[in-house]
Amino acid sequence: MESFSDGVFAVAITLLVLDLSVPSGGRSLIGALADEWPEFAAFAISFVVIGVIWVNHHAVLTTLPRADRTVLFANLALLMSIVVIPFATAMFARYATEGGDASHTAGALFAGAQLFMAITFSTLYVLVMRRSHADVDAADPVGRLRSTLRFGLGGFAYAVCIPLAFVNAVLVLAVCGGVAVYYVLDQVTVRPA
Amino acid sequence: MESFSDGVFAVAITLLVLDLSVPSGGRSLIGALADEWPEFAAFAISFVVIGVIWVNHHAVLTTLPRADRTVLFANLALLMSIVVIPFATAMFARYATEGGDASHTAGALFAGAQLFMAITFSTLYVLVMRRSHADVDAADPVGRLRSTLRFGLGGFAYAVCIPLAFVNAVLVLAVCGGVAVYYVLDQVTVRPA
Amino acid sequence: MESFSDGVFAVAITLLVLDLSVPSGGRSLIGALADEWPEFAAFAISFVVIGVIWVNHHAVLTTLPRADRTVLFANLALLMSIVVIPFATAMFARYATEGGDASHTAGALFAGAQLFMAITFSTLYVLVMRRSHADVDAADPVGRLRSTLRFGLGGFAYAVCIPLAFVNAVLVLAVCGGVAVYYVLDQVTVRPA
Amino acid sequence: MESFSDGVFAVAITLLVLDLSVPSGGRSLIGALADEWPEFAAFAISFVVIGVIWVNHHAVLTTLPRADRTVLFANLALLMSIVVIPFATAMFARYATEGGDASHTAGALFAGAQLFMAITFSTLYVLVMRRSHADVDAADPVGRLRSTLRFGLGGFAYAVCIPLAFVNAVLVLAVCGGVAVYYVLDQVTVRPA
Repeated sequence: MESFSDGVFAVAITLLVLDLSVPSGGRSLIGALADEWPEFAAFAISFVVIGVIWVNHHAVLTTLPRADRTVLFANLALLMSIVVIPFATAMFARYATEGGDASHTAGALFAGAQLFMAITFSTLYVLVMRRSHADVDAADPVGRLRSTLRFGLGGFAYAVCIPLAFVNAVLVLAVCGGVAVYYVLDQVTVRPA
Repeated sequence: MESFSDGVFAVAITLLVLDLSVPSGGRSLIGALADEWPEFAAFAISFVVIGVIWVNHHAVLTTLPRADRTVLFANLALLMSIVVIPFATAMFARYATEGGDASHTAGALFAGAQLFMAITFSTLYVLVMRRSHADVDAADPVGRLRSTLRFGLGGFAYAVCIPLAFVNAVLVLAVCGGVAVYYVLDQVTVRPA
Repeated sequence: MESFSDGVFAVAITLLVLDLSVPSGGRSLIGALADEWPEFAAFAISFVVIGVIWVNHHAVLTTLPRADRTVLFANLALLMSIVVIPFATAMFARYATEGGDASHTAGALFAGAQLFMAITFSTLYVLVMRRSHADVDAADPVGRLRSTLRFGLGGFAYAVCIPLAFVNAVLVLAVCGGVAVYYVLDQVTVRPA
Repeated sequence: MESFSDGVFAVAITLLVLDLSVPSGGRSLIGALADEWPEFAAFAISFVVIGVIWVNHHAVLTTLPRADRTVLFANLALLMSIVVIPFATAMFARYATEGGDASHTAGALFAGAQLFMAITFSTLYVLVMRRSHADVDAADPVGRLRSTLRFGLGGFAYAVCIPLAFVNAVLVLAVCGGVAVYYVLDQVTVRPA
């Protein structure tokens, strides 16, 4: 299960580069690239998010004694959410600065894809923790609270981004970027039971 | 053999995302995405099918004591069928709702690709079982019957889909989707000999 | 070295599917696909060739006691030849039936890419055999002759294909397809020293 | 961490093939391919650079006793620089021979991507060496000087390429090609502490 999951993560994170489009000629290349900044921002955020989820996925799965069908299914759902991210990123990059309805929709879907990933990862996480009896910062009530907050925070922030996208799609970038940075700094640390 | 196969499965399942096309501008993005629904349905079905075959592939191969040339060749045939699926999916997604001859052909080829995969997987399965003397639900006659039915079912359903595609391509989605869900719920469980 | 090489093989073999193009609309889909037959033939040949080289690569590398710089470099050259194959395949598929100069050039380059791969693989093979003191069918003079013939055959056939392409590009398909089938049936078997 | 990194390296190095474009018809295929020479040169350089970094990455990581958050983060930064290279290569290949501002910008970005990779790899290297207490040619002052020069050289050459690109983009190819060859010949050799 791990080598397959690692492969999907690695391919999906690398396919993000296909979302960076080489500008067609006819005007200043620097200017054309500068106009593509949401593409680069979305690429960087998606890259960090997939990278962080991969690190956490690894930490969580190492505590699993034996994969059963439910866990495999939850893992497949997580992988599907990972695979969808390059698509949502490409759509966001294409429409984010167009303004109007399309940018709102693209922003909401970008946030929605990350929310889908947060939900599938949390589900997998809960399933694995139940089976492994490992504890994630849960030895004491403060750790447990912190752990709950951490998981809740991402889901909450992504959920908030969906209506936020209808105000301004670029706000989604700011919030998702902030969440990505937060998760880089505060990664899941799993303690064996 | 396993790491290479895992790699091919992982890449093929992730390449499916390239079949999801970002709509070009000029009209409502939500409307354009809604019109692309067969693309998303085909993506989801192909994703689940490759995922399920991967899980089963893994379960079957772990019983194999030593890979010989025939098994390697059968495995390569299975991998070729896996690699073809993103192509068949892309073609189906492109033509499914166009109606007319093209949608029928695309539906038949989508089902045909899944049939090809079912046949190559069954072949590999039989070859490995003969070599490993492992038994798959075959300790008793009921298990054996169930196992035969399970394998037969997928092949039968996919084969039925081919003429069905000439009635309506969308019916193919419904049947293949049903088979995918069935295989998620009833996965191969291999018992060592 | 193995996991990286396996990854490159797996990605390259799967990227071949991107060479299969979904026909654009406007005419009969079956007819359009039938016209694309060189695409499918080239895909199948390249798939089998990469698959066979992967199997042999694996067999050869398992005898290597320790990778040094020369072997790593030879391996990188082989991987570059593998990575180039989807490009040569795409070009061949695009031009093979156009006739005229372009089809000849594309055929010659398709054969040339396979020749490049045969040369880099033979180089790696010789280097590894020298280090591992393993013997490949070389215990007796007949085995040694057979082994030399086998390696020579592929290189010779690919080299012959280059002028042959200037007669008719489709002949290249026939010869390369024949070589691929031959290598499936007669794989390298490495005997430890 | 290794299998994921290996996967990213393998996918990125293979995706480089997507930067090789099949010429569209309408003129001599050989001539069209000859005009694409910067594409092939950039492909080869990027291939060798990623390959060399992968070999060195492997050598460095094997000395790491245990991955902590800082190392994981530095590794993710390196992987991001690797993933960006196919994009920078594609842009360079597209604009290198166009002349004018676009070729200068594309050359500078191609060199900049390699500089980014050199910086992230050096950072990872320093972090891992501190943790592993392994020494890289540092047993004696000469070895230490040589090691520093080696790392400095690449960064220096890439940095020099950025202004150089504004003289002539093709000079970037020459310098980066030279650095790639140098790194193939003088790879990092890590000695356990």
